[in-house]
Formats: sequence, C-alpha cells, structure tokens
Amino acid sequence: MINVAIIGASGYTGAELSRILSNHPHAKITAVTSRQHAGKKLHEVFPHLRDLISITCEIPVIETLCDQADIFFTAVPHKTAMEIVPEILSAGKKVIDLSADFRLRDVAVYEQWYQKHSAPQYLSQAVYGLPELYREAIKTTSLVANPGCYPTSIILALAPLLENGAIIPESIIADSKSGASGAGRSAAVGTLFCEVSDGFRPYKVGNHRHTPEIEQEVSVMAGQATSLSFTPHLLPISRGILSTVYATLSEGITDEMVTAMYKDKYGSEQFVRILDNTSLPATQFVRGSNYCDIGFHIDRRTNRITVMSAIDNIVKGAAGQAVQNMNILTGLNEEEGLTGTPFFP
Amino acid sequence: MINVAIIGASGYTGAELSRILSNHPHAKITAVTSRQHAGKKLHEVFPHLRDLISITCEIPVIETLCDQADIFFTAVPHKTAMEIVPEILSAGKKVIDLSADFRLRDVAVYEQWYQKHSAPQYLSQAVYGLPELYREAIKTTSLVANPGCYPTSIILALAPLLENGAIIPESIIADSKSGASGAGRSAAVGTLFCEVSDGFRPYKVGNHRHTPEIEQEVSVMAGQATSLSFTPHLLPISRGILSTVYATLSEGITDEMVTAMYKDKYGSEQFVRILDNTSLPATQFVRGSNYCDIGFHIDRRTNRITVMSAIDNIVKGAAGQAVQNMNILTGLNEEEGLTGTPFFP
Amino acid sequence: MINVAIIGASGYTGAELSRILSNHPHAKITAVTSRQHAGKKLHEVFPHLRDLISITCEIPVIETLCDQADIFFTAVPHKTAMEIVPEILSAGKKVIDLSADFRLRDVAVYEQWYQKHSAPQYLSQAVYGLPELYREAIKTTSLVANPGCYPTSIILALAPLLENGAIIPESIIADSKSGASGAGRSAAVGTLFCEVSDGFRPYKVGNHRHTPEIEQEVSVMAGQATSLSFTPHLLPISRGILSTVYATLSEGITDEMVTAMYKDKYGSEQFVRILDNTSLPATQFVRGSNYCDIGFHIDRRTNRITVMSAIDNIVKGAAGQAVQNMNILTGLNEEEGLTGTPFFP
Amino acid sequence: MINVAIIGASGYTGAELSRILSNHPHAKITAVTSRQHAGKKLHEVFPHLRDLISITCEIPVIETLCDQADIFFTAVPHKTAMEIVPEILSAGKKVIDLSADFRLRDVAVYEQWYQKHSAPQYLSQAVYGLPELYREAIKTTSLVANPGCYPTSIILALAPLLENGAIIPESIIADSKSGASGAGRSAAVGTLFCEVSDGFRPYKVGNHRHTPEIEQEVSVMAGQATSLSFTPHLLPISRGILSTVYATLSEGITDEMVTAMYKDKYGSEQFVRILDNTSLPATQFVRGSNYCDIGFHIDRRTNRITVMSAIDNIVKGAAGQAVQNMNILTGLNEEEGLTGTPFFP
Repeated sequence: MINVAIIGASGYTGAELSRILSNHPHAKITAVTSRQHAGKKLHEVFPHLRDLISITCEIPVIETLCDQADIFFTAVPHKTAMEIVPEILSAGKKVIDLSADFRLRDVAVYEQWYQKHSAPQYLSQAVYGLPELYREAIKTTSLVANPGCYPTSIILALAPLLENGAIIPESIIADSKSGASGAGRSAAVGTLFCEVSDGFRPYKVGNHRHTPEIEQEVSVMAGQATSLSFTPHLLPISRGILSTVYATLSEGITDEMVTAMYKDKYGSEQFVRILDNTSLPATQFVRGSNYCDIGFHIDRRTNRITVMSAIDNIVKGAAGQAVQNMNILTGLNEEEGLTGTPFFP
Repeated sequence: MINVAIIGASGYTGAELSRILSNHPHAKITAVTSRQHAGKKLHEVFPHLRDLISITCEIPVIETLCDQADIFFTAVPHKTAMEIVPEILSAGKKVIDLSADFRLRDVAVYEQWYQKHSAPQYLSQAVYGLPELYREAIKTTSLVANPGCYPTSIILALAPLLENGAIIPESIIADSKSGASGAGRSAAVGTLFCEVSDGFRPYKVGNHRHTPEIEQEVSVMAGQATSLSFTPHLLPISRGILSTVYATLSEGITDEMVTAMYKDKYGSEQFVRILDNTSLPATQFVRGSNYCDIGFHIDRRTNRITVMSAIDNIVKGAAGQAVQNMNILTGLNEEEGLTGTPFFP
Repeated sequence: MINVAIIGASGYTGAELSRILSNHPHAKITAVTSRQHAGKKLHEVFPHLRDLISITCEIPVIETLCDQADIFFTAVPHKTAMEIVPEILSAGKKVIDLSADFRLRDVAVYEQWYQKHSAPQYLSQAVYGLPELYREAIKTTSLVANPGCYPTSIILALAPLLENGAIIPESIIADSKSGASGAGRSAAVGTLFCEVSDGFRPYKVGNHRHTPEIEQEVSVMAGQATSLSFTPHLLPISRGILSTVYATLSEGITDEMVTAMYKDKYGSEQFVRILDNTSLPATQFVRGSNYCDIGFHIDRRTNRITVMSAIDNIVKGAAGQAVQNMNILTGLNEEEGLTGTPFFP
Repeated sequence: MINVAIIGASGYTGAELSRILSNHPHAKITAVTSRQHAGKKLHEVFPHLRDLISITCEIPVIETLCDQADIFFTAVPHKTAMEIVPEILSAGKKVIDLSADFRLRDVAVYEQWYQKHSAPQYLSQAVYGLPELYREAIKTTSLVANPGCYPTSIILALAPLLENGAIIPESIIADSKSGASGAGRSAAVGTLFCEVSDGFRPYKVGNHRHTPEIEQEVSVMAGQATSLSFTPHLLPISRGILSTVYATLSEGITDEMVTAMYKDKYGSEQFVRILDNTSLPATQFVRGSNYCDIGFHIDRRTNRITVMSAIDNIVKGAAGQAVQNMNILTGLNEEEGLTGTPFFP
C-alpha cells in the first residue's frame, strides 16, 4: 500500500484526487491539507465524499506530513507549489505537482507569464507528466509536473501529426472550450451560476497562461520554435474540455497516412480512444473518466486537418492524469483506480 | 463469474447497467439486446462505453439468450416485460425486472393504473426489490421487481417513521423532483433540450403511475390502507431525484426519537447515508452513485416533519439498485461494482 | 416623463430595473448608484445594457439624488434600506423598496427574523406592494414595500382560496423552487456554477426569512393567525420560481367553486394567467415576463388541492412588480413597460 | 397597420416571430399556419404566448392567406419554402423567407448541397437579407432570403476586414458554437435534454449546409472565390451563437486601421455593437435581442486576428432579423418591435 498525501484538498482537483485515491486498490490517503478548512472532516467540505473517506483536513506542515506519506500530490496554486515542493523533495519523497510551477523548462518563459521563480534549480529534474509522451522519464523522476488541462487536450491531439511532420507548425490554431470547474472553487462573480449558465464566451484571448506550455511541447515535437493561436472559452458545463485544432497539412500527406499515425501513436494507449466514423469527440462521452477521445477531419478544399479532442478537465486534465502518473512512478498498472467510467448521461 | 444478459440495452438504464456490470469483478455481460440497434456494437449506440465493453446488440430471442446467461436484467417498458419474463423464469433463470410489471401485488390495482396483466400468476412470487426493506426475501426469489425511481426515494425517506408509528399516515405529502433521464431516451418534443433547460415544471399531477406503488409500500409499513399526495416535477438536470416529504408527527414523538429511528434502520446500510447537521441532501452529492442521502427537519410550530431524500435515479433508482439486488441474489457482497462514486462537481 | 433613481444598480434586480425602465415610455432613469462600481458606466458592469442605457454609477448621496428624481427604487440589502429610505421620504419623494425592511407590519416579528429596526415608525405607512391585493392602497402611499419573490408566488396562489374560506389554513404546505438569481450577485462558493449546475437541493429548511412575510399575508386573508410549512429549494436555472402549494379543502368546496374563485379574483388582472387544462405552470413560460401563471389540481382521495404558481423571480418577484407598482403610484397604465414577453425557449 | 402571416408557426422561429410581431406597434398577425397543430390556439402549442396573442393555427392554403396578409414570413423547412413562395409572390405579396431556398444565387451550388431546386427563376430576384450589407436592395425587393444563423454571425464578423482587404481570404477559419434551438423543435434523440446538457460537441464537421452560404458572401466581399474552414458545435444552451473567426492579416494592417474599419462599417448600425476593451462578446449578453456583439484581438506573434461575434440565433439569426427586414421593406424605423432587450441573467 502506497501512503499518499494531498496538499490542497479543498479545491475541485483535490476533491477528485480524494475520490479516486479513496477507491484505489493500492493507495491509502494518510493526510489531506486545507488551511481554510483545517479541523473539518473532508466530507463536511465535500458532502459527496461522506462514507468514501474519513479523514480530517490539516494545516500543511511539511515536516510532519513527510512522516505520513511517500507520494505527495500538490494541488495548490502556482507560487504556493514552488514554496513547498523543494522541502518535500529534500525529505526524499516524490511529488506530483498539479500547479504550473514546474511545467516550463525555461525559467525566463515562466517568469514572463507568471512571476519570479523561487526554485528554478528544480526545473531541469521535473518531468512533464504526459504519460503518452514521457512515460519512460516519469518512471524514474521524483518530480512530475502534471500538465495543464488545455495543454493535455491540445498536445495529445497534435502529437502524431507533429512527430511525423504531417502539418505545418506555424499554421496551428487551437480553439478550446472548457467547463467551469477549470476556474476552481474560489468565490468569484465571474463564475457564479447566473453568469455562466445558458451562456458562452471567450476569455483571456491571446494571453492565457497555458499558451507557453502548449508552445513548449509543440516546439519539441515540431523540432522548431513554434507560436500558435490559442483561444479559451467558458462552457456552461462543470466538467470537460473540447479542443478543435486546425492545421495545414504538409504536402503529400494522405488520409490513410494520418489514420496510421494516430493508430501507431495511440493504438496501445489505455486512455486515448481514436474514434472511427461512427462518432465525434464530445465532452459528455468522457465525463468522469481518464479518457482523451480524438477524431479528425481532412478537408481537401482548404488542405486543412481539423482535429478534435475531448477530455474531462478534472480527470485526464488534472487528478486522473496525476494518479496515472503515480501508477507509473510506483510501478503499478497504469489504469489502477481509473477504470469504470465515463458516465453518460 | 456470473453470466448476465441485459434485455433492452439501448435506454439510459440499459446503458448504466452495461457500464456498472462491465466493471463488476464477478459479472460478465454475455448478451445485450436492442431491436432498434441490432447488429451494432453497443459503443456505437453509446460512445462513452467504447473500450469498456465490446459487445454487439442482438434481437432478443429468449431461448437463445437462456443458453448465454443465468441472470437477466429486463430493462424494457412495462407490458413488454410481462411478455418475456415468464419464458425466462420457465427456463430456470433469475430475473431482475426494471419495469413496473411485477411491482404491484394486487393485479386489480395494476390494471387500473396500467393495462391488462398477462402474467398475473407471477405477482405473488415477485419480491419488491428494495434491499433495505426486503433483503431476506430477495435472497431466495427468482423474480425481483426492481422499484421505481420516485418510490425508492420516498419509501426510504419514510420507512423509519412509518415502521415506528411516528407519523400520521394520511398526512403524507411527497413533492418530488426528477432529472430528465427518468423520461427515457425516446425522441419526444417534451424532453428536448430547449423544452427542459433553464426551466422547471410539474407534470402528471395527481395521476403519475408511481402513486400506487408508493401507496402499496406505505400502506404495508403503516399497517393500514393509505392514500397520499404525490407531485412529480421535471428538473433541468440529467440525473437525480430529490423528494421533499411532509408528514404530521404522532403525539409524543421527540427529535431524539426520530434520530434514533433513522440510525436504527439505516445505521448499518451501505447505501443510505443519514446526514447530520453539516449538510442537506442534494442530487449533486449522490450523482453517479448508489447512495440515498436522507436528512430531516422537525418544525414544532406546525408539528410537521420534513424529510428530504436524494438519489441518482439511474443508479439507486434503477441500474445500481438492480445490481445491488443481483449481488444479494447471488450471495456476493452487496456493494460489489457499486463503489467509488459519487461524482462532484 | 417620470424621473427615477435606482439605488443599488449592480445586483441582478438593479440590472433588471435598469433594463425595464430604459425601455419604459414614460420613465427616465436619471441616476443609478453603486458603491462598488462608482464611476463606471453601467454597461461596463452589465454588458448586455450597452446601447440601451448610457449612465454612470454614482456613490449614493441621498440629498443630491433627491434633486434628480421623484421616484426611488431601493434595490439594496435589508438594513441598508432602512437607513436611507427615511431621508428620501423626508424629501417628499416616493420610494419603492425592494428590500425586506418595510414588508412586515409587526416590528417584533421583523426583529425576530432579521435584526433591530431603526425606522419602525415607517412600518405603518408602508403598503405591501402586491397590486392584486393592495392596488387601492398603493395608489396613495409614498412607501411601497415590494414583496419578496417566494411570497409573491405563494400568496397569489392562495389568495382566492383563503379569501373564500375554501381551505383549512393550518394545512398549508408550500414547497418552492427558485432559480439562482434569487441569491444575488455576490461572490460566494455556494452559488458558483459548479455547485448549482446539474443539481438540486433544499436550503434554509424551516428558517427562511420569507416565512413570516408569507404568514403575515396568509393570516390576513385567513382571518386568523396562521403558521405554515415553507421549504425553499435551489434550481439550476437563472430565473424562475415555481411553488407547489398543498392544502386541505374545507367541507363542501367543489371543483367548480374553486374555478370560479380564481376567475373572480384574477379574471381582469393583467399579470395573472389562470391556466386551463391545456397546460401546467412552468418557469420557462413566464421567463422574462411579469406574469404569474397559476394552475391547480384537486384530489378527492385525499381531499387536498395542489396549487402551482410560476413567476420570473427577477420580474414579477422583484423588478417587474416594482415597475407595476410605480405605474400604479403614478397613475399610468399598469402594464406600461412590462409587455412583449415572456421568452421561450 | 401591416397585416402579416406566419407560415410555419409551430417551430421555435415561428414562435419568436409571433412573440415579436404580437408586440410590434405597426404590425398585426392575421394568420398563422401549422399543419400539425391546425385548429389549436397558438398558445396551446406555446403556453408562453397566452394573452400575448389569440389566434388559431390554420392549414396553410396560400390562396386564402393572400386575402389576409400583405407580408408573409415563411418559417418552413427548405424544399417546402420553394414550393409555396412562388404562389405568394404571384399574388403580389412580399415574402421574407427564413429557409435556405433562396439564399444561394447559384442554383448549381444549391443543388450540390441541398436538392433539386424547383423555382430557380426566383433566385435572381431574391435579396440576401443581411441589412448591414444589403439594406438598399432589401427596400425594393419582394423576396428577402433571410440569412442563416451561423452565416449572420460569421459574415458580420468579417465584413469590415474583407471589404478593406485587411485579411488573406484563404486563411479564414470559423469555429462556431450554437445553442440547441438551432436544431428546431422536432423530436429527435440527438437533441434530447440528456444528450445535450452538461456536454459539448462538434457536428457535421466539414459538411454543414451553411458553408456555401458563408463562402458566397465572403467571396463577394473578398472579390475572389474563397473556400474556408467552418466547424459548428452544439452548446448546452437554448439561444445563442458565438463564432470565433481566425484570419491572417494582410501586410501593413495596423491595430488602429482595424478599429477604424469596424467603426466605419458599424458605427451607425442599430444592431451591431462593437465592444471596446471592457468586455468580450458573450451569448448571454445578447440573449433575446437583435444585437450582434463583435470584439477582436490581434496577435502580432502569429500575425493573426481573432474576431469574435455573438448573436441570439433565434433573433438576429432568424426571427428578429426577419422583422428588421420587414421594417426596411415597409419603410418603418428599422428598430420597431426590436428594442427593450437583451435579457441577463
């Protein structure tokens, strides 16, 4: 049994980590922290967890926590993560960090989009935790930088094309739509029910902080520095991201070649489903699951490919992928604790 | 391994049975039927099931099916059920029927609310499949009449009070609200997104077919023939029923006595959660789970008790309870295949 | 042209007042106030109002405002209202107060449910602004206490029955369901999209502050002090309240008598629609309008009547009714500025 | 007073036409038709219209109808429209056709995307009813081809850029998201509440029938035959379309030039609102209104402009624009009957 601690259990990601891990056959949650709710039972904060887990929220004291757990999930905001992760690593523990603090390899880029980095020396040892791209490196690291939700959906959509030179990198446009849970559980007028319900809108157009993360991985796969257009939108749903990604095909790329690229890349992946012509990706078909569903359409009139990918932003876009990374880190079957879903309707 | 067949797999209940059973450690789905989709893979009908289950929908031919399975879930409309259940039982198989056809013990009442019954001789052997009330009888029957969704929520709310004479039976009013999945997956104007979304309305006021089912069980528990007021409403959500049930307290009933009645009745139940004062029942806290959450409030000014219960109508109100019944029927742990949820948000 | 000021324009009620009045043929908005957004254009706070109204939010300085307007809508929280209303009245202006501060005639009851009242001397001159009950008194008052949203829906549902002695007052149970706009536009975790969407729950069971307001008016109509059961619930919709109200019929009351009572009471009302047997009340059919739709069902088995009423909580439950009151106060046609809706879907 | 008839009043567009026109100061609805509901009052089909309009649905008999009305709104499916429009025109009446039958000027293109055209001789006299582009021609025609909902949102977004050569035509990608009312009021599994709610998906990728309509108008404005990428998606909302349109800027185009182009084009338009930097377009801010809200963002890293436009698909995308066209046709003020909204929340 693996002893795990969840730092920051009072957000939606923390709650989903608690739910998944409470049902994981080989993990035991030994500590959860929340400054705001310290002293309360976790199920008083999240009534759905009643009877699934009986644990009390603590103030995070890293030294004490290091006696309780071997694997740490840090589900805290960026900046907070970089303040606590070094201490956990120094105690010889392994960290799966769900913040943005260790995702960007270039500290200058991080500091341009976020703020000053207080632990840049850890960036080089962090592994970007997208198992479909970095499985081998995840196995041996102590610090997994769990990817952002939008980047997960977009990078998985593009990887087979970029790795095979099938598209022109500078032509990429990613139009993404996310459910409201991506905005977290903080009180804010902008995410009140009445502001989001029965509506739809773009936000942070041209300056969303996931842009450099997407561009970092796209550039690696393209083998060249690549800028792209990324527009996030807010959907009136709780869970789910659908990204519609456009790119111009390279010369000589046939439909059959594209189909083969996706099959080669993801044919043996547990959590990527390539859709044939009977359906298109939809957030409702991955709800509550760790799947990324991918479909594509090629238009010969414009010579463009449209790739669509759907994930549950809290699962494959956060907590589920973090558990997938834990399974890899600890040598377990990659799907442990992550089966039995999605839910529809 | 128990071999199971799902007759009527193309509705929401059939889909949920398929999902739960595909992940059940001791059950194997050996056949699913759908006249409309015969020949298609089930995941072509329900794309969320892709990779969870790989099975092809068949035309239901009972004789053939009886070679394939030992437990039958009949998730078909009333009337259709009574036409096929006898044949399955005659082949020595066990049936968990999710229709209304075997729930009412009095054929005259059935025929008043539904239509002529073609297999009334089976009514006496059918067991009303509410495990919290009839667990022992379920263990030994061959025909479980899986309860309706509204009745499940209302009967569980009232059982401790009625069994202890704590309320006046004729004072009962049940105001229930259900998500749209209760209306099934048939094309109909009334359940189109635009008709249901951002709205709320009562329907079938005073004549919903679950009324006699609720009254049957309430009468048994009250020890007297009981009529009650039951008003169903349609919520703009997919899953969930919340029932708000009002009744006048009998003389001398204290708050502490009521608390004790609920604890005595449900303290050791896996799937009933009695809420203390930290939260009230809410459909979002049981979503996707087999739980029934119950809370109550006593108002001494009016001498009434208000009991609130929340279930997921597709799970505890249908497919989950059916699997719970299967577990009981087959001697398995009652919670097998039913853990790891609910989902929030 | 009537010059009007809206005190507290940055909530949903203030926004709806601004929208309705900006389109009113005989009113001109001369001032809107908002401490939080002072200095901003109102359409920067509410982008939907762009081009409908061009006005800047001010800090509320009553003395200055009294030079600008003759009719004041105070759309501020209770307690704030009682602090500013006396000054406006002293300046010889008329006030339509949308808070709870002047609705209860008995200061003791107010102080039991709210807090100390600082202007109790105004309670006797305030008229409860439900035009269908108090039209004549509204015409001549300077202070209209605009009713609460839940009370509007419940009192209108019951008035014809109570005024005619058709029901037993102590048997009344009101089960009400409201959209999230009723909770206002303040940032709060409980009304975030993810907490409300795809869910349903009761709240403040047995202690909602609208209870004494409903009981006050029910007692007047019943001619006796009356307690009742009132349970509010939160719907995953923005606008709308549906109340399902149960009561036991008095002896000798026939269906025809009940039909006649509703026709007599509301037959010539502009904003109450009595539904015949072709439909039931639904929030989606009054959305955006000042209508109250009412339907009923009599069950002879239990001798109960179930009355259902639907309103848009922001319109007939707040801003629309306030404008209706303004029209009455100022001698205009009661429907001015309130036609052309509802919206469906 | 203008006498108008609505052919096909039982769909969402017909209902909205009925609502708007029932409140129009200079129009009188003298006939509404519906084969399915003939003989019923319109408010029995759409309960929200009770008391707004009292009229009975008729079987459409064009000859009779031509005695009753001067302006005809044909809100019927394509193919049905081309069968009845010629007869109405022959009677000397004017038609605003909301189907696709007279939008494409090239019959070959129509027949490629739809089916054989039975009245191609009328194509040359039909005017594409986008007032912001074709106001002068609308004034004098007898046949207005009311634009599709997606095309309205996309063409208005692009017009100022294309007319000024500010973008490269072949770079255009339109990613559009529509509410479910766009799918109409026919019973269908795909638009049931449970299929749409809490989900999001693309559909008809690469082959939606609005593609040739968009390309026709884009080609006119670009002065060259233009193909583009258009992807429609289904939002879990009733009303609203948001289009996010990407294009590469032509050389030398500055931000100020783009701002000026939008101001020049739309500065004096009643129903186009150009957003400054205080907000971005959102469907909830145009809900129920005839507005098209437009905002844009220029990214110098990729040299692309992202234009976002929001409309209510039933209003500016259908019924509202049709009434705007009627106002132009008949010499009324263009905004008659179309003010007082949008609604939020």
